[in-house]
Amino acid sequence: MTTLEIMKRAKESRAALAGADTEAKNRALCFMADKIIEKTDDILAANGEDMEAARGKINEVMLDRLMLDSDRIRAMADGIRHVAALPDPAGRILKENLLDNGLKVEKVSVPLGVVAIIYESRPNVTSDAASLAVKSGNACILRCGKEAHRSAAAIVAAMREGLSFAGFPADCVSLVEDTSRASATELMKGVGYIDLLIPRGGAGLIKSCLENAEVPCIETGTGICHVYVDCDADLEKAVRIVNNAKTSRPSVCNAMEVLVVHEAVVGKLMPMLDKVLVEDRLSSGLEPVEIRADAAAAAFSKYARPSSESDYDTEFLNYILAVKTVGGVGEAVEHISLHSTKHSDAIVTENGKSADFFVKNIDSAAVYVNASTRFTDGGVFGLGCEMGISTQKLHARGPMGLEELTSYKYVVRGDGHVR
Amino acid sequence: MTTLEIMKRAKESRAALAGADTEAKNRALCFMADKIIEKTDDILAANGEDMEAARGKINEVMLDRLMLDSDRIRAMADGIRHVAALPDPAGRILKENLLDNGLKVEKVSVPLGVVAIIYESRPNVTSDAASLAVKSGNACILRCGKEAHRSAAAIVAAMREGLSFAGFPADCVSLVEDTSRASATELMKGVGYIDLLIPRGGAGLIKSCLENAEVPCIETGTGICHVYVDCDADLEKAVRIVNNAKTSRPSVCNAMEVLVVHEAVVGKLMPMLDKVLVEDRLSSGLEPVEIRADAAAAAFSKYARPSSESDYDTEFLNYILAVKTVGGVGEAVEHISLHSTKHSDAIVTENGKSADFFVKNIDSAAVYVNASTRFTDGGVFGLGCEMGISTQKLHARGPMGLEELTSYKYVVRGDGHVR
Repeated sequence: MTTLEIMKRAKESRAALAGADTEAKNRALCFMADKIIEKTDDILAANGEDMEAARGKINEVMLDRLMLDSDRIRAMADGIRHVAALPDPAGRILKENLLDNGLKVEKVSVPLGVVAIIYESRPNVTSDAASLAVKSGNACILRCGKEAHRSAAAIVAAMREGLSFAGFPADCVSLVEDTSRASATELMKGVGYIDLLIPRGGAGLIKSCLENAEVPCIETGTGICHVYVDCDADLEKAVRIVNNAKTSRPSVCNAMEVLVVHEAVVGKLMPMLDKVLVEDRLSSGLEPVEIRADAAAAAFSKYARPSSESDYDTEFLNYILAVKTVGGVGEAVEHISLHSTKHSDAIVTENGKSADFFVKNIDSAAVYVNASTRFTDGGVFGLGCEMGISTQKLHARGPMGLEELTSYKYVVRGDGHVR
Repeated sequence: MTTLEIMKRAKESRAALAGADTEAKNRALCFMADKIIEKTDDILAANGEDMEAARGKINEVMLDRLMLDSDRIRAMADGIRHVAALPDPAGRILKENLLDNGLKVEKVSVPLGVVAIIYESRPNVTSDAASLAVKSGNACILRCGKEAHRSAAAIVAAMREGLSFAGFPADCVSLVEDTSRASATELMKGVGYIDLLIPRGGAGLIKSCLENAEVPCIETGTGICHVYVDCDADLEKAVRIVNNAKTSRPSVCNAMEVLVVHEAVVGKLMPMLDKVLVEDRLSSGLEPVEIRADAAAAAFSKYARPSSESDYDTEFLNYILAVKTVGGVGEAVEHISLHSTKHSDAIVTENGKSADFFVKNIDSAAVYVNASTRFTDGGVFGLGCEMGISTQKLHARGPMGLEELTSYKYVVRGDGHVR
């Protein structure tokens, strides 16, 4: 089927979901989960083909992201059931106003309509995104990277069976068949069909969306996250936070990439980091962190190599840490403002004034005081789930949960009222 | 000054406003209002030049929109003081969450940063937009149509003096000097400088934004608004609502353009409309409404001329009404869904089920039951003011007030917390 045909069908199907009550949507989600379990063998077979085609072409980390086994498939089904158990974000009365003239104005949350998601190689994004869309009453169009396309097709086929079984049009969830760039561009230009496009992927995809998208679009994910260690920091806390933010899962967007450090503590901090990020890791058989530092910081590190300017604008997603020395919290904010992707940035300090200054002046989705940037997550923030992490300021910022997949409308009831 | 230079200066200035407390922003607004009154003569002189240049080139309605006198200038200053009196939309704690691990997560409203507005010839939009931006803590860049440029420049000069007087950088409010299309395109592509672009104007401007804007953008204003008169309508109410929605102010976006009427009542309704929209207006010396109806409706009207298909997709902004006959509320929803600009649409009916069906299925910013579409307005809806009326679903829908000029961020406070 052409991408245009898929967009047309999604548009036609959305009313069924938008008009459905919570119970009907939850039933559909449960059937979708059941069908995924039922079709485990089909999904594993399709994934096997994807894995075979990918081997040798992508690295081990990416291969692991692509791989499914029956545990991971069960986790996908459990994820869908978890979404079914969350509160319905549509139909909430956000404001109510009875005007003096008797007119009743209600602001009510409503589904957006058709949500399209462009993503790369993690097959579980397929079921996560579809379940969030269905729960919020949106039809969804999924466009998966070519590496994971067979797996995604098998997962979508199962979910569509579940939808039909629950009495919904299967086209409420569909997968774009064309895996060439052309189909991504078609979605970006799908004015009249797509109410929200969510690109989840690398800088190239985001840039292409910025330049080409004519439909409303929310950027997600790029994270050049900073930790600033202030002169008034508790250095034990600082080391713990830097170690966690950098090494607990370096491939994710809320991992730290750049350490900004006050010149008054750099001499004490760098040797502590040498130990934790390099020596301790080596002696535990773990990959050490490569430290790329400016001259002021490198002078105090046994392992640091000199940083280049581009290191401060790179999302390494790896065991690499850039280090920048500054003269104070003002300079730290200046550096971060210039280089941050506005995802998550942290200050470590015991000084309340410095913390407040940082919080007020750092223009990022999540700003941390004495905590790791790794907490930026829909589950952690209490949203119950996550469609991605918005790094823009319009509509949704930070983790996008179910509420962020709704809009609202004003419903006004009168009795022949005129103005 | 070049448009790029203006964008750079706005970006540099925004922190001053974003960091200011409510009192400081209100003081700035009051000084802006005072300076506008003080500079009345300069503003009138500049407006006189605009009027002279425009005479003969634009019609009387547009000339009246352009014209300023001392009353209108006073109204502009009063408008700014009214905004000063509204609650501050920034710094509100939208959600608070103390996690089990002791981490405190706050969702706090914050200014967007730099807001750019492209508008046409109403000089008072200059002060309205600037005051809403300043109150919400945003720097703003105004790009006014060429006809009103001298007036806008005089108003902006006064407001900048007020800002400086209050200790804020004058560049918190600026006017683009270049009135050619190039400057609008520069704003649309001002990634890194502009956090929100609001185009207020005709279909051409909106289309250009859709195609060219790389910065986040909210469409406003185009209104092909419908009133559907159901078979169960109280026809007296229907006539009152149609008359109000069509004739009380036909040049505004919440005015009705298309009447959709149930075939069961069309025979009774059309003669009633002939009287109110044509005969009564003629006998009061008012311009009659031109009725363009399909065959089923025209058969019952003395004055209707046949409609063409394009009449159902035209924002007349004039004393013209298109009429479409349908077989029921389902068909009405279908017609409206195909032709509405998703601004404001109304049903007139005494049947609760039909009303609910209409409300549920009409995907517009404001949906009315037994009331005129003319109520769609920030003031009426209790927002206190209005930056425009969004016809899109992302971020803001319907009237945009102060809250719609803010985003939010998550502020997370811990004590060395790691994940």
